[in-house]
Amino acid sequence: MSISKETISKRFQEIQDHICGQIEAIDKGHRFKEDLWQREAGGGGRTRAIEGSVIEKGGVNFSEVYGKLPKQAFKSLGIEGEEFFATGVSIVFHPKNPHGPIIHMNIRYFEMDGDQWWFGGGIDLTPHYIDIDQAAYFHRNLRSICNKHSITYYDKFKEWADNYFYIPHRKETRGIGGIFFDRLDDKGSFSKEARWAFVQDVGMVFPIIYNELISAKANIPYTDKQVEWQNYRRGRYAEFNLAWDRGTKFGLHTGGRTESILMSMPPLAKWSYDHQVEPNSSEAFTKAHLKKGIDWINYSTGKEE
Amino acid sequence: MSISKETISKRFQEIQDHICGQIEAIDKGHRFKEDLWQREAGGGGRTRAIEGSVIEKGGVNFSEVYGKLPKQAFKSLGIEGEEFFATGVSIVFHPKNPHGPIIHMNIRYFEMDGDQWWFGGGIDLTPHYIDIDQAAYFHRNLRSICNKHSITYYDKFKEWADNYFYIPHRKETRGIGGIFFDRLDDKGSFSKEARWAFVQDVGMVFPIIYNELISAKANIPYTDKQVEWQNYRRGRYAEFNLAWDRGTKFGLHTGGRTESILMSMPPLAKWSYDHQVEPNSSEAFTKAHLKKGIDWINYSTGKEE
Repeated sequence: MSISKETISKRFQEIQDHICGQIEAIDKGHRFKEDLWQREAGGGGRTRAIEGSVIEKGGVNFSEVYGKLPKQAFKSLGIEGEEFFATGVSIVFHPKNPHGPIIHMNIRYFEMDGDQWWFGGGIDLTPHYIDIDQAAYFHRNLRSICNKHSITYYDKFKEWADNYFYIPHRKETRGIGGIFFDRLDDKGSFSKEARWAFVQDVGMVFPIIYNELISAKANIPYTDKQVEWQNYRRGRYAEFNLAWDRGTKFGLHTGGRTESILMSMPPLAKWSYDHQVEPNSSEAFTKAHLKKGIDWINYSTGKEE
Repeated sequence: MSISKETISKRFQEIQDHICGQIEAIDKGHRFKEDLWQREAGGGGRTRAIEGSVIEKGGVNFSEVYGKLPKQAFKSLGIEGEEFFATGVSIVFHPKNPHGPIIHMNIRYFEMDGDQWWFGGGIDLTPHYIDIDQAAYFHRNLRSICNKHSITYYDKFKEWADNYFYIPHRKETRGIGGIFFDRLDDKGSFSKEARWAFVQDVGMVFPIIYNELISAKANIPYTDKQVEWQNYRRGRYAEFNLAWDRGTKFGLHTGGRTESILMSMPPLAKWSYDHQVEPNSSEAFTKAHLKKGIDWINYSTGKEE
């Protein structure tokens, strides 16, 4: 029996609940504020936002939307059809401490005219300061989750993330990448059950990974200069999301709920003309590592584990 | 005898010099930093940036670029041809004082395959706090400049600005508009000389207008709360520029000089989930007036002068 869209949507809501619970346990004393919303043309969502002391600004969004979309919108995505159904969970956390990384996770399911379907999603990490041990930990965990489902996944999805989370006008990656995947269907060697199991694992591993990364950083002292750098890095995040992210652009151009889409924006961002980093600084180290194709798992030792 | 592209380019550089001189006279003790740059495929520019005490972040850019552009880039602008020449002056100032308005001005000249040409440009104002007297002053001056050249200009170019400087996903205008024009050629009732005279006037009136507006605001005391609001408004400015401004998008997608293009970005910008203004506050007044079609010249009195 095939997995229905209702089952997927319900499970996505459970994953949203699970993640919010885990994050509230990290950011003690702060709770998510929930907004339920409806989409005029069909469906709706529940947007949950937090402004905490560990996470300065974060959001965990669930949505389930359906109906007819303008052909133009689909054409831009290379999709043929009329009636669509889409459900997903989408997350961005901007930590207060500049030593902590920004994280993004998204899992989604799409149906077209009832007979075409696919899963998509990803996790990527944007440290303000790249910590190579955390980068290795992050990618090692993503590889484990991938390998559990297919040994072909990690390399392919890591490369996809490097290419997706890229800022062409800066010739920089957004951060240290992660995994990105789309159009995962059952036309090849995977069943719908297998795809679905993978997508759920991505959602469920997310709070474990972020807990590990942020707990190690949330209480490290920091300087005003480091906050300034954090705000420059957040500026790049804003540039990527507004100018290049296909998901954000699709949402803003098709009349999606703006506050839910732009939940991803940083609390603060800074720009100055032609900002330069100090040679040999940790800022320079980070800047030099905003590149595609770095093997983060083996980066520190230079040899295969 | 027709006005050559060399004449226009030279005059644009004089206008850049003139504006920078005027602004340095306002922001005493601060100077523009100049970067000369060359474009690999042809041409170059001089970018001038200031970080002053009146203008927290500003730029005055001149460029003259030419060569062949990818057909894709032209197609997106609806332009047919191969060889192009483009020169222009482009300005954005972000004042330090939240009571002062952000201003943008651009004048440009475009040639295609040697036989097609047109002028474009505009000025628009984005107050953090709308001051209806300043709004009237601003639009009255734009109308004067327009009327000097054609009584058809102001109404048409004001409406064009309302439509151009619009943030669809916020259902808000960027600010109080101004004038915007493009494809001004000699195929109708205007000569090239007449178009050129108008464009020069737009460039030359800019520092006079901004001097008046900013001098009245630069020394008004302000609170942290007002700076916070300024940063929210700057966030909207960033959203418009990165997600909607055709000039910015064209530049970023065709490999323009990023630091010159993004000179327009605010020094700082703030986002929080679903930010609301206090009822009956001056923030609420401003928010309520981010609309197309307001007759700013007659807004305060409600009657024709």
